[in-house]
Amino acid sequence: MNKRVTFKLVGSVMLVEAALLLLPLFVSLVTKSGDQMSFVITILLTALCGMSLRAIKTPDDTLNAREGCAIVALSWLALSFFGALPFWISGSIPSLLDAFFETVSGFTTTGATILTDVEALPKGLLFWRSLTHWAGGMGVLVLSLAILPKMGGRSIYIMRAESSGPSTEKLVPRVGQTAKILYKLYIGASVVLFIALLICGCNWYDSFIHMFGAAGTGGFSNYAASVAHLNNPAAEIILGVFMVLFGINFSIYYFLFHRNWKMLRQNSEWKVYLSVVAAATIVIAVNILSLPRFQGHFGHALRASFFQVSSIMTTTGYATEDFNLWPQLSRVILLLLMMIGGCAGSTAGGLKVIRLQLLFKCAIRDISRTIHPRSVSVIKLEKRAVDEKVISGVQGYFFISIAIVCLSSVVVALDGFDFETTLTSVMATFFNIGPGLSLVGPTGSFAMMSPLSKLVLTFDMLLGRLEIFPLLMMFAPETWRK
Amino acid sequence: MNKRVTFKLVGSVMLVEAALLLLPLFVSLVTKSGDQMSFVITILLTALCGMSLRAIKTPDDTLNAREGCAIVALSWLALSFFGALPFWISGSIPSLLDAFFETVSGFTTTGATILTDVEALPKGLLFWRSLTHWAGGMGVLVLSLAILPKMGGRSIYIMRAESSGPSTEKLVPRVGQTAKILYKLYIGASVVLFIALLICGCNWYDSFIHMFGAAGTGGFSNYAASVAHLNNPAAEIILGVFMVLFGINFSIYYFLFHRNWKMLRQNSEWKVYLSVVAAATIVIAVNILSLPRFQGHFGHALRASFFQVSSIMTTTGYATEDFNLWPQLSRVILLLLMMIGGCAGSTAGGLKVIRLQLLFKCAIRDISRTIHPRSVSVIKLEKRAVDEKVISGVQGYFFISIAIVCLSSVVVALDGFDFETTLTSVMATFFNIGPGLSLVGPTGSFAMMSPLSKLVLTFDMLLGRLEIFPLLMMFAPETWRK
Repeated sequence: MNKRVTFKLVGSVMLVEAALLLLPLFVSLVTKSGDQMSFVITILLTALCGMSLRAIKTPDDTLNAREGCAIVALSWLALSFFGALPFWISGSIPSLLDAFFETVSGFTTTGATILTDVEALPKGLLFWRSLTHWAGGMGVLVLSLAILPKMGGRSIYIMRAESSGPSTEKLVPRVGQTAKILYKLYIGASVVLFIALLICGCNWYDSFIHMFGAAGTGGFSNYAASVAHLNNPAAEIILGVFMVLFGINFSIYYFLFHRNWKMLRQNSEWKVYLSVVAAATIVIAVNILSLPRFQGHFGHALRASFFQVSSIMTTTGYATEDFNLWPQLSRVILLLLMMIGGCAGSTAGGLKVIRLQLLFKCAIRDISRTIHPRSVSVIKLEKRAVDEKVISGVQGYFFISIAIVCLSSVVVALDGFDFETTLTSVMATFFNIGPGLSLVGPTGSFAMMSPLSKLVLTFDMLLGRLEIFPLLMMFAPETWRK
Repeated sequence: MNKRVTFKLVGSVMLVEAALLLLPLFVSLVTKSGDQMSFVITILLTALCGMSLRAIKTPDDTLNAREGCAIVALSWLALSFFGALPFWISGSIPSLLDAFFETVSGFTTTGATILTDVEALPKGLLFWRSLTHWAGGMGVLVLSLAILPKMGGRSIYIMRAESSGPSTEKLVPRVGQTAKILYKLYIGASVVLFIALLICGCNWYDSFIHMFGAAGTGGFSNYAASVAHLNNPAAEIILGVFMVLFGINFSIYYFLFHRNWKMLRQNSEWKVYLSVVAAATIVIAVNILSLPRFQGHFGHALRASFFQVSSIMTTTGYATEDFNLWPQLSRVILLLLMMIGGCAGSTAGGLKVIRLQLLFKCAIRDISRTIHPRSVSVIKLEKRAVDEKVISGVQGYFFISIAIVCLSSVVVALDGFDFETTLTSVMATFFNIGPGLSLVGPTGSFAMMSPLSKLVLTFDMLLGRLEIFPLLMMFAPETWRK
């Protein structure tokens, strides 16, 4: 591996983080929340480390898939470590492991929290906590590619390693331009959402926090009761709709802006995704109608169901209702939606709709192979044959995901919590949702877990966000060879 | 499809079932349990239907993969339907759906029961209930191939469709001979187990019942407390050891008899399988040592752990302890063992060890592909390269299995039981184990489930035992075309 280029670029990403940290510092000063020093110290430390790494001389700036993955994996670890410092330095989260968990949960847009009293945190820290969602959603490295002049010859490998889905394609020939377009769309949509929340009557601070959480499909709120605290049906609907929108592949919006109807028609993922959202919303609305809370108010049940489906399927994790108390059918459906997740190339987590489309197509092919064993058939998506290597990769990804969930559950089981807590805490972190069921449900937290479980779940969040391979390959000795 | 040959051969299998039904009739007469008439009627009905189907003229006796699968799927449905009649006719199980569930659970060697008072059943019926385990374990069609003179030109397709694992190989060139060898080994091992149980002091009836349950890795007992009722440590150890042995690929014993050490050394599945059994036994023994029941008695904990690991990993489902009350770590490990199951070509259920070996090898290849994207590497098992089609088939099988578990859980969730009951009832049936956790734990039953859930779980048992494809392809219209 070309270690010089790798570490140098990690340095660049740290400088971007130092710049991002100026925003919560500003908020801290404006709101006089008293946490400004923790930001000042962190910014200095991060910038110093970043600049030291930037100083590395790179006689050879070759950058291949291996370096791309390593840069992403190491950057995310560095981002999370330095991002955790303000919580720890300020004393708001006394344990460094807890602060690290919370920051990883932020950047990976998981939204799982170890805080038992979120409202006690100063406003600067809460702003930073939510800003990590926003930055992690579209990717901090993609942001770096968009704003830094030149990050190395073949930076597509960096983008591939950080973006979600089985294959990443450039919208325009140059990677830096593609990253710029993605961030322009992302910022545009975020601004629209922010203004919409203001119009609904939310104050500027709440609007920022919930915009960050929804755009990054993260789910951190500044209130213990999450979005329910706002008690604002209009904001609830706005957030529900925008979460769904942020769960769609961003290239779709690019096609939309360029009136490229052909590409829109051809792409099937967003259609399947919206169909699943619609179907799940209706089934759950009917199912929860029996609860005393909704009795006879189908409109109310539909709104609650839509918000929760949107929040869970996009792996955001906001809650307007304690879905932990909903009937078993709704809970199981929500658990399935957690696994499915949003579209590839969006800010959402989960396995991604397109992977499941491919897996189902494979399943149908397998059945037809039982009938005609010698038939040769290719799997088509959007009228094009899918490479068997991609298919095998998706099938492998599915197995490794389930294996990680199973093995992590064994470790978390050591804590002795009930089965539902054990399994759903792993699913909620690995699929980057946030809340699970039972003790880690929307009104619970991960505070009571053992340090070992927190460490495993933190690692699961990173594995889920970076789609496993960039992180796992760091443990292979051959990665580090010249 | 060649429907004539298909239905004719289903007729043959029904005649074999009619012959098998003579055994419980004999037991019923010997023990004067009063249920003889239900057997007489069933035998007449089954034989009549079987002979009518045998009378079909087959000008063309071509038999391909499609017919092989159809024969197996239809035979299993017929076997289960006619096998359910004695329970229903005698009035012991008043609902035909319940009787069907119980019989499918028997033939598929699941061992899940809808009976709340098993000890109330007459001895003839209990004998038949357990005999279905024994016959279903090695396969009723394999038995038919072994005893009937000639079942069609290419009966390997029948054997493949009924046997478990990603690929079935003949031990000797002729299929009929291979089936004979398998059944000779099976009967031999069963007789040894039966005698061992007699020596341990069990009476002849209990010995038969528990021999059937262990050999078929089914798990039906004639006692509500399962094997714990025997209160016989020696029998418990014997059963534990034999369950493990019946979970090994039977060709291993063939190689053993022929002193083919090379094949024994090369085959890795049985080694991995035994290692997993050993590792799980030790971990669980240490984990349950904290229970008041075992405090300080490591030997006792080890025995209990070994029996349960052996019973669950081979998907038998016998219990000497209520493992539902064990610590969460042990419960989660047992749940994982349920998924893994035994070796291919054994009587055990689950995904099969060899499939997981292949899936893990694929996962490692996927990681190394991240590092060297253009590398070409084949997956080797037993020093031979594995065909990519087999690998893709195994990956597909894994996805479809998980998809079936998820979708079935949604239907069972309609009943509104707790999450653990919902999920583990599906896993316990689909992976052919029998008991799950919570309400369907070793002391529970499936009696309280709704008819819809029972139907889905019955279908899951068949899907699990026949490894999905033969049954699913029956729903494809192209299967039925000429």
